[in-house]
Amino acid sequence: MSQKIKAILSKIAPVDRRLEAAIWRKLDNLTKPRRSLGRLEELAAWYSLIHHTLTPSVVHKVAVVMAGDHGVAAEGVSAFPQEVTKQMALNFLAGGAGISALAKHTGTRVVVVDVGVAGEALSHPELRRYKVAQGTRNMAVGPAMTRKQAQQALEVGIRVVEEELATGVDIIATGDMGIANTTPSSALTAVFTGCSVDEVSGPGTGIDQETLSYKKKVIKQAIAINKPQRDDPWDVLAKLGGLEIAGLAGVILAGAAYRRPIVLDGFISGAAALVAYQIKPQILDYLLAAHLSREAGHRVILEHLGLNPLLRLDLRLGEGTGAVLGINLVEAGVKIMTQMASFSKAGVSETL
Amino acid sequence: MSQKIKAILSKIAPVDRRLEAAIWRKLDNLTKPRRSLGRLEELAAWYSLIHHTLTPSVVHKVAVVMAGDHGVAAEGVSAFPQEVTKQMALNFLAGGAGISALAKHTGTRVVVVDVGVAGEALSHPELRRYKVAQGTRNMAVGPAMTRKQAQQALEVGIRVVEEELATGVDIIATGDMGIANTTPSSALTAVFTGCSVDEVSGPGTGIDQETLSYKKKVIKQAIAINKPQRDDPWDVLAKLGGLEIAGLAGVILAGAAYRRPIVLDGFISGAAALVAYQIKPQILDYLLAAHLSREAGHRVILEHLGLNPLLRLDLRLGEGTGAVLGINLVEAGVKIMTQMASFSKAGVSETL
Repeated sequence: MSQKIKAILSKIAPVDRRLEAAIWRKLDNLTKPRRSLGRLEELAAWYSLIHHTLTPSVVHKVAVVMAGDHGVAAEGVSAFPQEVTKQMALNFLAGGAGISALAKHTGTRVVVVDVGVAGEALSHPELRRYKVAQGTRNMAVGPAMTRKQAQQALEVGIRVVEEELATGVDIIATGDMGIANTTPSSALTAVFTGCSVDEVSGPGTGIDQETLSYKKKVIKQAIAINKPQRDDPWDVLAKLGGLEIAGLAGVILAGAAYRRPIVLDGFISGAAALVAYQIKPQILDYLLAAHLSREAGHRVILEHLGLNPLLRLDLRLGEGTGAVLGINLVEAGVKIMTQMASFSKAGVSETL
Repeated sequence: MSQKIKAILSKIAPVDRRLEAAIWRKLDNLTKPRRSLGRLEELAAWYSLIHHTLTPSVVHKVAVVMAGDHGVAAEGVSAFPQEVTKQMALNFLAGGAGISALAKHTGTRVVVVDVGVAGEALSHPELRRYKVAQGTRNMAVGPAMTRKQAQQALEVGIRVVEEELATGVDIIATGDMGIANTTPSSALTAVFTGCSVDEVSGPGTGIDQETLSYKKKVIKQAIAINKPQRDDPWDVLAKLGGLEIAGLAGVILAGAAYRRPIVLDGFISGAAALVAYQIKPQILDYLLAAHLSREAGHRVILEHLGLNPLLRLDLRLGEGTGAVLGINLVEAGVKIMTQMASFSKAGVSETL
C-alpha cells in the first residue's frame, strides 16, 4: 500500500459526537412538533455532526463521476457497446446527460474523471485525465487489474477529493460511468456479503433474461477462476473490480478522512462503499445512501452496511443522479435547522 | 351548491392523453437506458400530459396553505393549544416556519389563507383574509359547520387558485395549519373509506397513548352524533370536516378544473383530496401524493385513492412541507425531459 493511501487511512476516525445533544436541542426548539420533520431532521443532525457545527451551511456540493471501462464487456454482458463509456463521459462534460440536468437543478458541481476509459485519450478542458489503464482486463479469464492498478485507481479518487478541497467541498456525491460495470459490482457484492451471485445480479441497463443468465454464469466463472481472498479487500478489488469502482472507493475514503458527508448513488457506488468499508469500517459515519436502486444487488449492499436509503424512485442510471437528489434533501434539512424560528423567537406556544 | 362551485365542477375532465406516446418517445430518446430514471420520468410525463406539451417548464410553483381552527380542540385532542394556529400563520408570513424554509429552498411561492382562524383578525399585508367563521364548532357535540359554511370555505379555495392564476401557476402544493385537524381528518377518512376509527387515527403532533384513546372516542362520538351520510360529501364535510380542509378541497377541485398538477402534502391534504374525490372523481389524474406521512390514516387514504407516495421521510408536520419537496422532484423530472440530449444529438450509441 502506498504512503498516500496509508496517510488517508490513518486520518479516518469515527465522527465526533460531542455536539449531538446540542444539535438535537436546537432542532427540537424550532417551531414544529418535536421530530415532525423526520428524516430531514436526521439529515441535518448527520451533516452538522460531521461538520462539527451548530450553524451548518451547504455551499460547495460536488459530484465526482468516475469513468472506466471493463474487459468483461467483451462477454456481451451489457445492453450497450463499450464505446458508450467514452461517449457518455463527453456527454457529461457537454451538459447533456442525466447527471448534468440533475446537478444543475441541485446546484452541484460535477467533476468528471477518466480513471480508465478505453480507446483514444478523451480531450476536454474540464476532464480530469487520470487514466490508470485502458479499461480493466476480462475478469472472466483472469484478474481485472493488478493489485498496483487497483491501488493507483483508488489513489485517483483521493487525489480528486484533495484537488476539490482547494476550491471547497461541503458534501460529496459519488457517481459512475462504465459499460458493463454492474457485472464487477455484482461479483464484489457476492464476495464481500457472502450472498449468492444469483441474489445480487440484475439486468443493469436492460439486458433480457437469457443474457442475464449468461451474465450470472460469467460472474460465477470470474469468482471461480480468480479465487479472490475475501479477507484481503485489495485482492478482491483487483481481481473482480473496476477502475472507476476503485476510484470511487478512494473518493469515499478521502471524504471520510477529510470529514465530509458522502452521499452514495446506487449499485456501483454501493460496491465502491463495500470495498472502502472492508478497507476501513470507520467510514460508515460519513455515508448516506441517497436511494434504493432497482438493481437487486443494491439492497443487499445497503443491508450489509446498515444504510437506510433516503429515496425509492426506481432509479437505475448511475452517474450520481440519485446522489445529487440526496444532496438536495440534505440541504433541505440543513435549511430547516438554520432558517426556522424557535418557539420563543416566533412567539409560538409550546405543548399544552 | 353555488354557481361558482357548479361552474368549477363542470370544467373538470380527465386529462387529455393524446400526447402520451409522443412524451414517452421523447423521454426514451434521451441519453440513458430506457426508463432508467424511474419515477422521475413518470413525473415528467404526468406533468407534460396535464400541461399538454412536449416542452414543459416549471416556473410558477405555488403552495396554498389554508389555516383554520377546530371546535373539537376543546376536547383536548391535540398536544398544542388552539392559539398556535394563529401564531403559526403569522410565522409562515414572517418566514420562520418549516414551510417557509422548504418553500424558499424549492423556489415555491407561499400563499397563506385565513379561512377560519379563531380569535382577533390576523393582520399581515400578504395574508388572504377570507375567514368564513371563527373556527368550526365542536363536532363531538354537533355539526362542525353548516352545509353553507362548508361550501363557502370550499369556494375560498377556488378563489385563491383563480387569484393566483393571474400571477401564474404551473403547479400547486397543498398545505394546512389547524390545531386539532388530524381529528376531523380521521373522522372524514373513517367515513369515506369505511375503515374503523382505530385504524385511521394517530398521535398527530404528539399526544400520548391515553390522549390518543380519548381522541378515538371523541371521533367515534362525533360520527355517532352527527350521522353523516356517506353518499353526500357535503353532508360529511360539513358535519366532520374543517374550514381549511374544505378550503383545500376547493384548491384541489379548482386545480383540476384549470388543468394544473396538484401535489398533495400529508394526512390533512389527503382528507381534503378524499372530499374532492367524493365530489368529483375525475380529479385523480391531476393528483400526486408527495409523501407518506407517519400518521396512520394517511396510508389508508392513499390506498383508497390509488396514489403511490413519492417520498417516505417520516414527515408529520403538514403546512405543505412534504408537498414542496414533491414539487422539487417534479421539476427535476421536467428538467430531465427538457435539458438532456438525445442519443443522436450527443453522438451516443444505442443498444447493441
